[in-house]
Amino acid sequence: MKITIAVDCMGGDHGPVVTVPGSLAFLSKHPNAETVLVGREEELSPLVEKAPAGLKSRLRIYNATQVVGMDEPPASVRSKKNSSMREAIHLVKHGEAQAAVSAGNTGALVMISRFALKTLPGINRPAICFALPTIKGHIYALDLGGNVDCTPEHLFEFGIMGAMLASALDHNERPTVGLLNVGTEEIKGNELTRRAGELLQASNLNYYGYIEGDDIFKGTTDVVVCDGFTGNVALKTSEGLGKMLGTFLREEVRRGPLTMLMGLVAMPLLRRFRNRANPGHYNGAVLLGLRNGVVLKSHGSADAFAFEQALARAADAVSNDLIQRLRDRLDTMMGPNGEDA
Amino acid sequence: MKITIAVDCMGGDHGPVVTVPGSLAFLSKHPNAETVLVGREEELSPLVEKAPAGLKSRLRIYNATQVVGMDEPPASVRSKKNSSMREAIHLVKHGEAQAAVSAGNTGALVMISRFALKTLPGINRPAICFALPTIKGHIYALDLGGNVDCTPEHLFEFGIMGAMLASALDHNERPTVGLLNVGTEEIKGNELTRRAGELLQASNLNYYGYIEGDDIFKGTTDVVVCDGFTGNVALKTSEGLGKMLGTFLREEVRRGPLTMLMGLVAMPLLRRFRNRANPGHYNGAVLLGLRNGVVLKSHGSADAFAFEQALARAADAVSNDLIQRLRDRLDTMMGPNGEDA
Repeated sequence: MKITIAVDCMGGDHGPVVTVPGSLAFLSKHPNAETVLVGREEELSPLVEKAPAGLKSRLRIYNATQVVGMDEPPASVRSKKNSSMREAIHLVKHGEAQAAVSAGNTGALVMISRFALKTLPGINRPAICFALPTIKGHIYALDLGGNVDCTPEHLFEFGIMGAMLASALDHNERPTVGLLNVGTEEIKGNELTRRAGELLQASNLNYYGYIEGDDIFKGTTDVVVCDGFTGNVALKTSEGLGKMLGTFLREEVRRGPLTMLMGLVAMPLLRRFRNRANPGHYNGAVLLGLRNGVVLKSHGSADAFAFEQALARAADAVSNDLIQRLRDRLDTMMGPNGEDA
Repeated sequence: MKITIAVDCMGGDHGPVVTVPGSLAFLSKHPNAETVLVGREEELSPLVEKAPAGLKSRLRIYNATQVVGMDEPPASVRSKKNSSMREAIHLVKHGEAQAAVSAGNTGALVMISRFALKTLPGINRPAICFALPTIKGHIYALDLGGNVDCTPEHLFEFGIMGAMLASALDHNERPTVGLLNVGTEEIKGNELTRRAGELLQASNLNYYGYIEGDDIFKGTTDVVVCDGFTGNVALKTSEGLGKMLGTFLREEVRRGPLTMLMGLVAMPLLRRFRNRANPGHYNGAVLLGLRNGVVLKSHGSADAFAFEQALARAADAVSNDLIQRLRDRLDTMMGPNGEDA
């Protein structure tokens, strides 16, 4: 199966200097994949010039002269018809690519994707969903920043979508769904979580109940649902902690000659640990709930290695026929009238 | 200076089997401190029986027959006039102790403390504030779970209280205050953060602007402000990540004979790293904004070592005359009419 991925090369904190090398690295490891590099041709061309012919033959540059700024408000994004982000998503819309990947402005990505690719029946808002590592395996967490103001109904939809994803990708027929809260008792939480909990409880999902922040990495449930504000903060705080611990470990190694020797002896061990803890390995969140194509959000600060992982995830989603599986699952989960039973 | 701390021995996930040994360990390291162990006498007595005479002479048991459950709603808490939590706080109210420490129900602790000890002028809600470690030093984060539904005005008060704490404890005259958000741009965030940002901007605080989750452990600002729901989730998620990474490190060491040997050689290094990363070292959050005494909240799942740290923090707060310093600072920060300029 040939996979074509449209890459928004201008997005993210670093733009083409990260997205183009990341795309080339991806192509070199995925011989059946092609990419369309979307962005300012005069910036992209020099970066692919020296790539091996075997890679060059599997990429093309699609000129898009406008760039969506990381801090640009939605109204201004809408008027940029030739932005690299919009063009990449429209390549998916028109069947020229099966997936789009962007490290750009999250709000704009959600807005453009929702408009161009539509949402699955019964789903109003796409959510940003990420498979986080846990002690037991992984957990699908959503929403991680697509929707900062949520209603209980949105959280309920996220529960359905997360369960769909877990069951489609992990062959898990009855994935457990937890609702992120500040306590596990029924009286805890704010208005939003209390009402969302009632909706989830009344559904035919395998609803686990409230879980707390520390349950995420414990892997207490298969899916965890929260509003996009909380999810984004929790994710980024975790990233920050991971980096700080990496710094602490380096500082302990460099404390003196003896610790440096210890660090040297234990190097393979420490390297394996650091690789496992490296958030770059886990880059690439699915924009879940879209009807007509796959969109992946890379971290804005991703380096070339991390961006490559996001492309690899997009390729996985396409080769696993993610959208069709989600549609099939959604039919099963919703009642015969398209409503949840 | 003699310091007396009232300990709610019945609170937390483990109760007296953790709080009593934690209190004894604290006494053994703080020769000028005394404790009042509040709780069911028949449960506490056997646990102190074998303590050395030098410690026993500095503790007394205060019998409180009721226990506030971890999941108990506020209405039911209010009717328990002889609960260990309430009695511990009332010992502070009546001047028999300068500080109270509890690992119990956070909502109940905030409610009882606010009622018994009142809030500082201009402050409506006490907030749970914690000095988190950062790459650069530490950051005062609040609210971490005391107030799950917040208005912009509450976040603004948290900013004032956090700045007061930083300036009182760190001799930092103009501590920077960051507002936790999902992006650093002005257009990002939800209604709550946008309006709170406006209030902070218009104040005479050294307001830094929006910060993101990963800025916390970077130490981008001296103080970070957020609603109690987000703060609690972020804190607990970080704890969960810390534990997972600890598990990963152990797994890498135990992977085979060679890695075990490496782990053995690097043991002192790894132990120092783990100690630095151990959340137990950082246990004990101040209930900030109270007028007539110090209340510290220990993590509910604290072990004896972690609980001891919370007691040590309470003793620090008392010996640093925290409340008086906060009052002095508050006068400086507020305008001449008690209103912020």
